Amino acid sequence: MSNTFGRILQLTTFGESHGAAIGGVLDGYPAGIAIDKAFVDAEVRKRATGQSHFSSSRKETDEIEFLSGIYNGKSLGTPIAFIVRNTNQRPADYDSLHYAYRPSHADYTYKAKYGIRDPRGGGRASARETLARVVAGALAKMALQQKNIRIKAFTSAIGPIELNHDYTHYDLEQADANEMRCPDAETAAKMYDYLQQVKDGHDSAGGIVTCVVEGCPAGIGEPVYGKLQAALASAMLSIPSVKGFDYGGGFDMAHGRGSEMNDAFVLAHSEVHTKTNHSGGIQGGISNGEPIYFRVAFKPVASIAMPQTTLTVAHEPTIIEISGRHDVCVVPRAVAVVEAMAALVVLDGLLQHRATCL
Amino acid sequence: MSNTFGRILQLTTFGESHGAAIGGVLDGYPAGIAIDKAFVDAEVRKRATGQSHFSSSRKETDEIEFLSGIYNGKSLGTPIAFIVRNTNQRPADYDSLHYAYRPSHADYTYKAKYGIRDPRGGGRASARETLARVVAGALAKMALQQKNIRIKAFTSAIGPIELNHDYTHYDLEQADANEMRCPDAETAAKMYDYLQQVKDGHDSAGGIVTCVVEGCPAGIGEPVYGKLQAALASAMLSIPSVKGFDYGGGFDMAHGRGSEMNDAFVLAHSEVHTKTNHSGGIQGGISNGEPIYFRVAFKPVASIAMPQTTLTVAHEPTIIEISGRHDVCVVPRAVAVVEAMAALVVLDGLLQHRATCL
Amino acid sequence: MSNTFGRILQLTTFGESHGAAIGGVLDGYPAGIAIDKAFVDAEVRKRATGQSHFSSSRKETDEIEFLSGIYNGKSLGTPIAFIVRNTNQRPADYDSLHYAYRPSHADYTYKAKYGIRDPRGGGRASARETLARVVAGALAKMALQQKNIRIKAFTSAIGPIELNHDYTHYDLEQADANEMRCPDAETAAKMYDYLQQVKDGHDSAGGIVTCVVEGCPAGIGEPVYGKLQAALASAMLSIPSVKGFDYGGGFDMAHGRGSEMNDAFVLAHSEVHTKTNHSGGIQGGISNGEPIYFRVAFKPVASIAMPQTTLTVAHEPTIIEISGRHDVCVVPRAVAVVEAMAALVVLDGLLQHRATCL
Amino acid sequence: MSNTFGRILQLTTFGESHGAAIGGVLDGYPAGIAIDKAFVDAEVRKRATGQSHFSSSRKETDEIEFLSGIYNGKSLGTPIAFIVRNTNQRPADYDSLHYAYRPSHADYTYKAKYGIRDPRGGGRASARETLARVVAGALAKMALQQKNIRIKAFTSAIGPIELNHDYTHYDLEQADANEMRCPDAETAAKMYDYLQQVKDGHDSAGGIVTCVVEGCPAGIGEPVYGKLQAALASAMLSIPSVKGFDYGGGFDMAHGRGSEMNDAFVLAHSEVHTKTNHSGGIQGGISNGEPIYFRVAFKPVASIAMPQTTLTVAHEPTIIEISGRHDVCVVPRAVAVVEAMAALVVLDGLLQHRATCL
Repeated sequence: MSNTFGRILQLTTFGESHGAAIGGVLDGYPAGIAIDKAFVDAEVRKRATGQSHFSSSRKETDEIEFLSGIYNGKSLGTPIAFIVRNTNQRPADYDSLHYAYRPSHADYTYKAKYGIRDPRGGGRASARETLARVVAGALAKMALQQKNIRIKAFTSAIGPIELNHDYTHYDLEQADANEMRCPDAETAAKMYDYLQQVKDGHDSAGGIVTCVVEGCPAGIGEPVYGKLQAALASAMLSIPSVKGFDYGGGFDMAHGRGSEMNDAFVLAHSEVHTKTNHSGGIQGGISNGEPIYFRVAFKPVASIAMPQTTLTVAHEPTIIEISGRHDVCVVPRAVAVVEAMAALVVLDGLLQHRATCL
Repeated sequence: MSNTFGRILQLTTFGESHGAAIGGVLDGYPAGIAIDKAFVDAEVRKRATGQSHFSSSRKETDEIEFLSGIYNGKSLGTPIAFIVRNTNQRPADYDSLHYAYRPSHADYTYKAKYGIRDPRGGGRASARETLARVVAGALAKMALQQKNIRIKAFTSAIGPIELNHDYTHYDLEQADANEMRCPDAETAAKMYDYLQQVKDGHDSAGGIVTCVVEGCPAGIGEPVYGKLQAALASAMLSIPSVKGFDYGGGFDMAHGRGSEMNDAFVLAHSEVHTKTNHSGGIQGGISNGEPIYFRVAFKPVASIAMPQTTLTVAHEPTIIEISGRHDVCVVPRAVAVVEAMAALVVLDGLLQHRATCL
Repeated sequence: MSNTFGRILQLTTFGESHGAAIGGVLDGYPAGIAIDKAFVDAEVRKRATGQSHFSSSRKETDEIEFLSGIYNGKSLGTPIAFIVRNTNQRPADYDSLHYAYRPSHADYTYKAKYGIRDPRGGGRASARETLARVVAGALAKMALQQKNIRIKAFTSAIGPIELNHDYTHYDLEQADANEMRCPDAETAAKMYDYLQQVKDGHDSAGGIVTCVVEGCPAGIGEPVYGKLQAALASAMLSIPSVKGFDYGGGFDMAHGRGSEMNDAFVLAHSEVHTKTNHSGGIQGGISNGEPIYFRVAFKPVASIAMPQTTLTVAHEPTIIEISGRHDVCVVPRAVAVVEAMAALVVLDGLLQHRATCL
Repeated sequence: MSNTFGRILQLTTFGESHGAAIGGVLDGYPAGIAIDKAFVDAEVRKRATGQSHFSSSRKETDEIEFLSGIYNGKSLGTPIAFIVRNTNQRPADYDSLHYAYRPSHADYTYKAKYGIRDPRGGGRASARETLARVVAGALAKMALQQKNIRIKAFTSAIGPIELNHDYTHYDLEQADANEMRCPDAETAAKMYDYLQQVKDGHDSAGGIVTCVVEGCPAGIGEPVYGKLQAALASAMLSIPSVKGFDYGGGFDMAHGRGSEMNDAFVLAHSEVHTKTNHSGGIQGGISNGEPIYFRVAFKPVASIAMPQTTLTVAHEPTIIEISGRHDVCVVPRAVAVVEAMAALVVLDGLLQHRATCL
């Protein structure tokens, strides 16, 4: 049951990195939504390798094939299944992984859990699984567009290079103008230079993605264990390499005072709004109509191009050198994954909310 | 369905702050566990008001009554239900809440969602609900003790006052020696002084709770959407006032390099271990046998004893003064809630893992 | 998780027959419904013992106490918890059960499953648990009344005595006029006489309950595994002593031909209807707007007042005589339970259906 | 969420009859099970068309492709996805269905529910979906074989022709010797003759499948709403055309007395057994170690080769003639589907039971 995400809108994904295919089944998707295949493809490209010289050189053509749930270009209300064949596999790259556990990878834990593992490229633990999330997220976005709900994520930090201001300071659309996915061109350039250094050092970097949901009406989120922030946190922490999540004022609020952090209710255009938005658009687990925003922290890529000490599967010390084709930093590509998961959570929230009254 | 937490071990809670009672039903709890009522009571007292002069003066006697699932002192494998009557209610304190929305509370969003709300003390949104979590968490701890799994949380920050070192530097048992629940006496004293200032200013403070799980075997956690960190994040973000979660190296890892952050596998006492533990005991969503640790950020208490601008339920601007009996800072009491939720997640993880093989 | 029923509307029940209390938590119940406590009490009385001289003489006063989820007489959208204290216990009646397994009871299987059991009156396996279902069902009925959906069950067979015609032939309201809960007075009299014979023979009887749901709109039910008939079947087979379920033409349809069994679509009052209703109001798992009807078969009560051979808990052959206070036939009381479960399924179906579109 | 079946072992299916493919994802399947593709193919063939001259002449080659979850011939513990391309489609057969609702089909209800439908061969409501169940059921059987649990279903009635004895009277393996799937050759011959008459009359027939589970240990099944019989009933009623389910003594028990129907516990080979098995191997929702047996009633096929009155999608009366390629009776093919669903329920039960203790 752990490969299914969501309550009403349920995404089930499958596939190992170097198996026949990866894919997903999206159940609970509303009927009658026009499905724009070109939009799905565009979303998938945002996550694709090969867009930056810091991303893996594995060439993923990523042909999405929809198998069900769509008829004459519209969703049927039945499960939408899709697959992406795995191609451009170089299993020889993973020969060494058969006999040793890569540091900070899931090799050891999968073996500990299941007694068996697919060593090719991380198997099920590969971030390639997130491709299925992006496809499903694209479908969710299409439905959200009908409600004028917009989801936009961007890179707010790579390594030590961070944006100086909060999201309201930037034109977020500019994030698509550079391969860092950062809305500030100057910061993006610094990030680029930083990553070049890291790459030259055969090392890897982490970073932070910030995401903003605009247009979400008040009332979405299901107390007490289905709070909107709990669903978002679960979604984000399920993404490989993610180490942290906060929303609204986040960790910084721990250090402030109530008088500084409370959001006063005010009337604007005859609607209830708040003067500030430290709450991040959510109060008591339910959206209040203000923009929802949150941060997602990614650790540096575990696969680095330098020798590392580890253990073999027979528990003998060894030195491992990970060849393969790896990202220096996944953050720019992860922007699409964060958006996708946010879209699934918000659409699921809208559908759950509909079920709260007759 | 949103008032139920967990997959195999499922806690369903109920109750409004000033209704007849709050309580819970814990289903999926293993049969044959000896239930120590005194231990439950002790856990509940850690969360109780009136232990610090910074906590609410509402006197909660909190008599736990178990209604089912226990026979001759042992769990039956059937649902364990418990209730706590609400007493010492002063509804008059909440008269003003009938007609105005408290800033940064859930008053407005509950109304937006349900069209109706219980204005007495926040109703269902009250942190009083967490009492049921602590009862269930105490039961979970009893089962975990049989597997030598220990869960210990403590206050690592209140406002700007923070511990300087990571958890391995302290004797965590010392956290129970002061009302700040901080394992370092000197820092605890500073926190106390800080809260006194905040209280004098009729204001409130937030803080951070750190939690450590020791003794969890490798193999717990269900990829990909039931990753252990995703379950923990969801659990923590479901606690009132929580704004952020990170585990292992957390947000700081976003700024480091792979070569610094990777955890090398080493053999110790013939067992697989890691030299460092930036992973926080979890890799690929599955525990690796190292200690699991994570941080939970709490915002300052929204109820402050100074006038605030807000809107009435008729959307007229007004000034609200919240009387009632409120905590200056919930963090010391929240330590018990964080432990309880962690215990539920880990026990649920153990049970889920058992179902992965025949 | 197995003590929770439903998907959106979720009833969690708890309690052993001779523990402190039994009760339930109903989550997902729509907000703003006026709760008529007198109606709940009336529903509960239909299931109570002591209404017929064929039912157990255990006097269950069955005082329902609501603990949460209701404010000023209306549902809040938060969980509605309720308890019923167990009184009039005569544990001495169950002394023999500590050391022997009653034939066709759950004594042995609970021990086999959990390694421990509560021998007092069947513990959790007691049909007393169904009281919680009737309370929740009464709440569900209140919500369904707002949509003009009516649920009516009745006794259609007791032992070999059966109604000769299908439900459309009778005025179902007449079922409440006799203690057999049978809408035909003449058949009811025969049932009464039959039960008297059975009672005189220190034996027990089974029977069949038929249930009709009128006013359910077309479109309710969730293919493919959440088909309306699958949800109803699961609900009914979860009731103690139930051995079978069929709907519409049921088992008899197995013996007929398509040309006889198909329901032709016709227009009536400008609405789509079917000429016949062998489908039982459900096609493809979704309601079609016609009345939904189904049958539920109950086995004879396992507790009989004559000596029976069995095994002790040490697996020694023995003769058991069940004293206690037992029903000769549970069918008339079970009518209320069948209605309750049907009400929960249909309301859950309505809520699920709302979540299928934006 | 309604296209997912099971609690720990979860099958999610997808696909419309004439879409690109149908398929499924089986999550929660134990790791390390050797997967015998030939066995899967053999199971699938039992359900295939074209094995009898009473089944549809649609030629389904039914090539199963596994996409994930298997590595070097063994299950990984990750989701096992599989697809079957839809071929040999003759959409022209379904032209008439675009504008009229077939009697006793799901055409009207899907339209009522979703506002849109795929008219080609019933779309998602087609019994072709059950192919995915048989694939998953074959996987479940492989796991059950390791525990020596055997599942065997057979045709016990077609139209009015029924077996005279209960299942213990027959060598159930003989059911595979004839195309009726009936273990008694003489009865099978009568069934064949009956179906020939029905076919000659351009009509269709229903029937009953009986299923027996042997070797299931005591303790499987999760009270109170996850009773084993409730899970089986839900599984069976989710199969297209099924109208009823009963287990053990079933509906007949409603007419008997307790003294006749109770199963006395006896010791045999030092094990607890029952003298008779009216309980059908389940007491209180939990298996008792005796054989589990149940019946599943199928209505006659709704598609018949004679003119029928119905309504157009514009609600005008019309006469419909269903061309297409339809079964005269689905019962012999449905035997494989009943077995598959039973295997999924029992394996899920075993896994759930493992999670009930530490």
